[in-house]
Amino acid sequence: MHFTSEQSLDDDVIERAFTLGDIPGILWTPASASVSAPVPLILLGHPGGLHKLYPRLAGRARHSAADGFATATIELPGSGERPRWPAVEEARADMRRALQAGEPVSDEIIEALILPLVEKSVPEWQAALDALLALPEVDGPVGYSGGVISIGVRLAVVEPRISAAVLFAGSFVPRAMFEEARQVTIPLHVLLQWDDEGNDRQAALDLFDAFGTREKTLHANLGGHTGVPQFAGEAAAQFFTRHLK
Amino acid sequence: MHFTSEQSLDDDVIERAFTLGDIPGILWTPASASVSAPVPLILLGHPGGLHKLYPRLAGRARHSAADGFATATIELPGSGERPRWPAVEEARADMRRALQAGEPVSDEIIEALILPLVEKSVPEWQAALDALLALPEVDGPVGYSGGVISIGVRLAVVEPRISAAVLFAGSFVPRAMFEEARQVTIPLHVLLQWDDEGNDRQAALDLFDAFGTREKTLHANLGGHTGVPQFAGEAAAQFFTRHLK
Repeated sequence: MHFTSEQSLDDDVIERAFTLGDIPGILWTPASASVSAPVPLILLGHPGGLHKLYPRLAGRARHSAADGFATATIELPGSGERPRWPAVEEARADMRRALQAGEPVSDEIIEALILPLVEKSVPEWQAALDALLALPEVDGPVGYSGGVISIGVRLAVVEPRISAAVLFAGSFVPRAMFEEARQVTIPLHVLLQWDDEGNDRQAALDLFDAFGTREKTLHANLGGHTGVPQFAGEAAAQFFTRHLK
Repeated sequence: MHFTSEQSLDDDVIERAFTLGDIPGILWTPASASVSAPVPLILLGHPGGLHKLYPRLAGRARHSAADGFATATIELPGSGERPRWPAVEEARADMRRALQAGEPVSDEIIEALILPLVEKSVPEWQAALDALLALPEVDGPVGYSGGVISIGVRLAVVEPRISAAVLFAGSFVPRAMFEEARQVTIPLHVLLQWDDEGNDRQAALDLFDAFGTREKTLHANLGGHTGVPQFAGEAAAQFFTRHLK
């Protein structure tokens, strides 16, 4: 892990860009975090494209820093400055065509888009976790928040260092993930936008039902994909404070 | 409205029993509430039986008082010390038999149980509201919380003094209420226990979908009817603080 730049946001948060091999990433730490007072970490998931998403990610990072958390994110394979990934781009185009035509998105399209992303990105997040937890000012426990829900599900199953997750039911879910969902045992807080245009509401409810964990909460709010109300973000922050502090 | 007793809970809350005609009720006010500093009011709904439910109701009242709210409740028709109501008792017994036999609860049973309760109790809550808002230490805005969800829906539609409601999806809902739900325009916070044995989950989700209001949130948690986690109660309290303060 190589830090490539550092800046201070409002004197409260230190933002450092890094590369992990050829994967770009960003780490935000509260200015108060130190070797003698390390802070817990939240991995910030996203749909891919760090540049475009920067304002939203930095906003989440600032809020988390105010709650005493470090946050970090890495670029998804095939997105942003990383090499293009034609197979996934093709599946994404197929999905867009189906949605625009008002047709159901087939299982084949969903699998072709999501499963390769999960397979490739989850080990990358785990490698990032290795590097981040080696920093003296960052410590466990670790949370995962948002992004492609199937990546969050797989991480929750395979990565024992993640102790709690906020998942955003905002992307289609391959059938295979429902079986994995039964294996999740960490506390979950699931956000669902009731009128999300790029999401199958019933599948999101079925996935929530499938999660094997004993503590799971679904927060559904009126509105589309990007309309998560501010109070819903605050409730998610309270969930992390309950479980990671 | 006649006060029949008064006691202080932990010096912080004044609890007064009252009767409104022949309907018993309880009012809790923060000790700090006064003519010069009146407090907003939350009506505490419940399934009927004030004596049996007193510990839970008083617990909710204490929390609300700490947040600066007065709370009040009245007995439901046919429950507690009020005259028995054979028709509703019969419908309740029919429902119990169906549930114990593992059979679906028919629309007829649900209607026979819920609709008379709604018809009779809603005007009683409105009369209580008249009396409570006439007290100098109690003021608007008013919230409604919990209890039989169909009573909450009807109150939200017909009673303009209620500005926000926390509804508990913990009882069966007659079909007619779905149409009323579309007429609700106040902010709603709906609690759903995912494994509630005396509730139809799909109907609860359909009801949430039907609500016509622009701000509605569903909080679903794992567990049975009485297993609402503490953090879910706190989220409901924050909803009232957002809307009634």
